[in-house]
Amino acid sequence: MKDKSDIGLIGLAVMGENLILNMANHGYTVTAYNRSTDKVDNFINGRAQGKSIRGAQSIEEFVDSLASPRKVMLMVKAGPSVDAVIEQLIPLLDQGDIIIDGGNTHFPDTNRRVKYLKEKGIQFIGTGVSGGEEGALTGPSIMPGGSPEAWPEVKPIFQHISAKVDDGAPCCDWVGEDGAGHFVKMVHNGIEYGDMQLICEAYQVMKELLGMSADEIHEVFAEWNKGDLDSYLIEISRDIMAYKDEDGEPLVEKILDTAGQKGTGKWTGVAALELGVPLTLIGEAVFARCLSAQKEERVLASETISGPTAMFEGDKAAFIEDLKQAVFASKIVSYAQGYMLMREAAKEHGWNLNYGGIALMWRGGCIIRSAFLGNIKEAFDKNPELTNLLLDDYFKDKVEAAQAGWRRVSASALLNGIPMPAITSALNYFDGYRTARLPANLLQAQRDYFGAHTYERLDKSRGEFFHTNWTGRGGDTASTTYDV
Amino acid sequence: MKDKSDIGLIGLAVMGENLILNMANHGYTVTAYNRSTDKVDNFINGRAQGKSIRGAQSIEEFVDSLASPRKVMLMVKAGPSVDAVIEQLIPLLDQGDIIIDGGNTHFPDTNRRVKYLKEKGIQFIGTGVSGGEEGALTGPSIMPGGSPEAWPEVKPIFQHISAKVDDGAPCCDWVGEDGAGHFVKMVHNGIEYGDMQLICEAYQVMKELLGMSADEIHEVFAEWNKGDLDSYLIEISRDIMAYKDEDGEPLVEKILDTAGQKGTGKWTGVAALELGVPLTLIGEAVFARCLSAQKEERVLASETISGPTAMFEGDKAAFIEDLKQAVFASKIVSYAQGYMLMREAAKEHGWNLNYGGIALMWRGGCIIRSAFLGNIKEAFDKNPELTNLLLDDYFKDKVEAAQAGWRRVSASALLNGIPMPAITSALNYFDGYRTARLPANLLQAQRDYFGAHTYERLDKSRGEFFHTNWTGRGGDTASTTYDV
Repeated sequence: MKDKSDIGLIGLAVMGENLILNMANHGYTVTAYNRSTDKVDNFINGRAQGKSIRGAQSIEEFVDSLASPRKVMLMVKAGPSVDAVIEQLIPLLDQGDIIIDGGNTHFPDTNRRVKYLKEKGIQFIGTGVSGGEEGALTGPSIMPGGSPEAWPEVKPIFQHISAKVDDGAPCCDWVGEDGAGHFVKMVHNGIEYGDMQLICEAYQVMKELLGMSADEIHEVFAEWNKGDLDSYLIEISRDIMAYKDEDGEPLVEKILDTAGQKGTGKWTGVAALELGVPLTLIGEAVFARCLSAQKEERVLASETISGPTAMFEGDKAAFIEDLKQAVFASKIVSYAQGYMLMREAAKEHGWNLNYGGIALMWRGGCIIRSAFLGNIKEAFDKNPELTNLLLDDYFKDKVEAAQAGWRRVSASALLNGIPMPAITSALNYFDGYRTARLPANLLQAQRDYFGAHTYERLDKSRGEFFHTNWTGRGGDTASTTYDV
Repeated sequence: MKDKSDIGLIGLAVMGENLILNMANHGYTVTAYNRSTDKVDNFINGRAQGKSIRGAQSIEEFVDSLASPRKVMLMVKAGPSVDAVIEQLIPLLDQGDIIIDGGNTHFPDTNRRVKYLKEKGIQFIGTGVSGGEEGALTGPSIMPGGSPEAWPEVKPIFQHISAKVDDGAPCCDWVGEDGAGHFVKMVHNGIEYGDMQLICEAYQVMKELLGMSADEIHEVFAEWNKGDLDSYLIEISRDIMAYKDEDGEPLVEKILDTAGQKGTGKWTGVAALELGVPLTLIGEAVFARCLSAQKEERVLASETISGPTAMFEGDKAAFIEDLKQAVFASKIVSYAQGYMLMREAAKEHGWNLNYGGIALMWRGGCIIRSAFLGNIKEAFDKNPELTNLLLDDYFKDKVEAAQAGWRRVSASALLNGIPMPAITSALNYFDGYRTARLPANLLQAQRDYFGAHTYERLDKSRGEFFHTNWTGRGGDTASTTYDV
């Protein structure tokens, strides 16, 4: 154990403890602190024993124990707690010291804190950390952004403790200024919502339309995990389907079907609306969680409202292959939409995001890790200016090959009354995206009709606006302040 | 013309002018003011001539001309301009005077202004006004909320100038406190986004799948306007399809297919995400506008990515009947979702909303006016506590009868590559809503697997949480601060 610690961490919940252990396992000396100091004692006398980890009984002792420039990582609840700890730290820190927020912070808060602490001469990094408790211990994906001057100081530690992909590249690199790291983590979580929803829809249709058992669905997920869908979430879904409760029955079937959504998925949807990015799949995934939460009302509705009796006729194996294609194609759309959101955010905030680098950070360690992200990295390596994944040759070919099955599965689900909001939403986006002429011409005519909002014409230059007096009544004045 | 005006209005764009003329036509004396006073002169010497309308050359003259308690209506651009005019007015007004903001203000701003002006002894009303320029002149829908004490003072004017439905009831009533009026107007606009998108999808599939001409689609809309879909937006769509450009070709086909969305539709989506309400149809409608705006990229994608060749086989007339059912059922879902959003907002903000009254306000005058809203009013008259329109007998029967056609149309669109995001999203919501067991059990298992987030069980009481050590590795500690 060194005299002065390489880094200190405040907040000893499971993620914080595991990150400390991960750092110590990589040879770093770490100081652990928590407001309730009994957690410090428990940790030091328990999981931290025999490791290069020291506990601090006060925040002053904590700060004094750190080598200069001090690196203080916070793993506390996102929100006012982060500000409270920052205020405690400010008088104790020196110019050039570094605070790192590793919580699930909303990116505008990180924008604000970077600016606030810069005025006080303190560097601030807001970093996404994904991988759950196991990832934190054995190698998470780490997505840091904030004060660029601070990055070289923490880079060795973060890259050492992060997950590595096959060629040894760390799943951690500099994302960008301000709240860029937390923004990218937010998009990661939104994509995670989407990936989870897609798997749930596949499970639902196999169960309700094909009448398959948990064990049979386990086999399908096991098979899918060997191909294009190879990913952590398919892998754990495979294992979950096989997990038996004490009575030998599949545990998953006993779990209540309600999920919360008061987090980063919601933020991702709001960011998409604010930036005008059609993030339809994640939007539907967030709303699917909202609907799942209305359990009692759904039970009542299921007894009140009739629907078709789900009935499958045809080749089950072929349907399952179609379903795999549907999930895969939808996943491509979801990532295409997520990347579009990051691109618009980068424009808005003046960030220089490295899109291939982000794919690499997500390639391992985090919840959405998958083989697929290697293909995304390749797409951005080939063309760093790629505007939409669907325009990359590899993904274009994949989605074109998948689309027939995708369409058949979507149609079957709708005809049989099995909800498939994310998969069909992705298909609708795909069809809208490859449609040169959408029906928004009628919409523009409507807006001009009732609100004199004017329109552009296909046979005139962009930026030239026209108004038609559709009714022969009313004025010829275009609307100036009234905007629908 | 009375010595003192009954009301004054600031902001002489088309909506402001028309509201003044509407008031004067109902016997009120009105003072008109605008920051650029040449607009005042033009109005007084033009459209206002011979009517009980006086112009003011300064804001002091404007305020002096009003009878007590003064009623000052603002029709200025939503945002900082409203605050600026309020600040100008404050020193000139007396206790108990009333400011009314009739612009498209975001409801949190109205919440703030009601509170701010109350401290200064001034009453504030934020009111939605819908109906476009023609509605403003001949009878808009008016949705006021804010200081309840102010309502009796402005009620006669507002109810006189508002639209009336068949039995003479005014499309204007008190909505609720704070920003409730602007909230309800926002939901109105979100629903308007949805209604417009549904009509656009019907138009697109008739054009692209059935190969119908604008004149043929005109006939269909004309027919639809006689039944359940009887509404202002179908009516104007009917007229738009028939409108010929100078060369005799349908004008609608020459209009550029890009629409903006930087307004109330976006706010409605954000409010739904914040409140956890699955507002899927309006969400897709907003995103469809975002996608329509990416015209150049869509043109490129249409040349790059292949899809199925749309090919219709079958009975056209039957398909069009199915389509009508699909639009109608989707519309029911959209209103069900919109009402759910208002209900959650009322809970959140402590508003007492009169849901039947809101349907009545929307029944005439505004953009979404329709026969349908009479049925909604009836549903809430029968059961003011109705949690979801789909549970009302009338709508349940309608949607059950519509669902077979709705499913066929949705499946055909997806198989043929015609985007139909709002119609299919509504169908997915309908199926999700009437599903007692959604697949969120798998999702909860995933969250417990990677993040120790715990789950509830079907065979245990709600509020009892369980964690499974799925892998046999890792800890038994449930996550405390790390939340995905």
